[in-house]
Amino acid sequence: MEQSIRNELPGTVKGIVSDKVLSEVVIETSAGEVAAVITTRSLERMGLKVGDPVLALIKATNVSLRRQG
Amino acid sequence: MEQSIRNELPGTVKGIVSDKVLSEVVIETSAGEVAAVITTRSLERMGLKVGDPVLALIKATNVSLRRQG
Amino acid sequence: MEQSIRNELPGTVKGIVSDKVLSEVVIETSAGEVAAVITTRSLERMGLKVGDPVLALIKATNVSLRRQG
Amino acid sequence: MEQSIRNELPGTVKGIVSDKVLSEVVIETSAGEVAAVITTRSLERMGLKVGDPVLALIKATNVSLRRQG
Amino acid sequence: MEQSIRNELPGTVKGIVSDKVLSEVVIETSAGEVAAVITTRSLERMGLKVGDPVLALIKATNVSLRRQG
Amino acid sequence: MEQSIRNELPGTVKGIVSDKVLSEVVIETSAGEVAAVITTRSLERMGLKVGDPVLALIKATNVSLRRQG
Repeated sequence: MEQSIRNELPGTVKGIVSDKVLSEVVIETSAGEVAAVITTRSLERMGLKVGDPVLALIKATNVSLRRQG
Repeated sequence: MEQSIRNELPGTVKGIVSDKVLSEVVIETSAGEVAAVITTRSLERMGLKVGDPVLALIKATNVSLRRQG
Repeated sequence: MEQSIRNELPGTVKGIVSDKVLSEVVIETSAGEVAAVITTRSLERMGLKVGDPVLALIKATNVSLRRQG
Repeated sequence: MEQSIRNELPGTVKGIVSDKVLSEVVIETSAGEVAAVITTRSLERMGLKVGDPVLALIKATNVSLRRQG
Repeated sequence: MEQSIRNELPGTVKGIVSDKVLSEVVIETSAGEVAAVITTRSLERMGLKVGDPVLALIKATNVSLRRQG
Repeated sequence: MEQSIRNELPGTVKGIVSDKVLSEVVIETSAGEVAAVITTRSLERMGLKVGDPVLALIKATNVSLRRQG
């Protein structure tokens, strides 16, 4: 294990909306859509576009739980 | 839509480890395991146990992306 | 208790400023103004407008403390 | 304004529970109880104890909203 | 110690990009550039401009680690 | 650029304190000490120990600013 971030969800970029500072990237995963807000600078440096395979990284301390059903 | 948190991943509680203040809850989702760190007080008030169906809630500003492959 | 987020502060929407990706919603609570930054998509889906009663949700791990006085 | 954190809620320390690494501090505010999770090292350095007046600091990007009622 | 936020990195403002809601402030520190996203309202209230000395404040629960080399 | 997290501060592990769920890792950087709270599971999987070179990863939306001096 190379880094401490516990959650890595594989998906494919489905849509991108950008302002100057931040961009919303929606990815399609097998657990449904996941929205990520990253800096537009990161988006450009990564060269992300629709269809690219990515991992959504989420630190465990940022996950909350709700009862289902 | 009742609340602003964009990401809700359905899963089932698979394991729980607790200290006095915080607990780690691992849930099994269709996109793989997701680890959540919540207060032990919340865990007890929710009465969560292995096998319970839950949603993992993640604010979009807490999701990062990495290129895959 | 249905979800693990410990802090829920009741208030009323007092002002909204939006970019394409993110919006700032200021709510009036009995402890003073609270500013929330949520995605504009969530704002639209919730149909939030000035005067609406809401709860500000804050995970305990995101709260810091400073000595007062 | 000396720092960028938008939300500062005044309150009084009501209870403290500590593990070695992290502590939960519950404060009483005029909007109800607010729970903060801080490092036990910070707790000790600040010398916090029940009855102390504090401000709960919350970055606006960490606040979500839910419809009330 | 007056507040619980563990990490305070001294630096100088090097660049600012603003949308209506959020602004990116890049600061130069002795450990390299650090990017902060704060509300444009906070930026304006603080009157931040290029060249100003600032501290980057980061709660320990928001820091992840990766192996180097 | 392979991932969206903007801030990567190089350092060396200086101290570790662990509970069952979470661990505090203090690293020495050229900008001073940085404390990270990660899951003890991640610490063990990474096999981190004092003296190891690491990068502290911090999402830009989790950085606040304070005026210095």
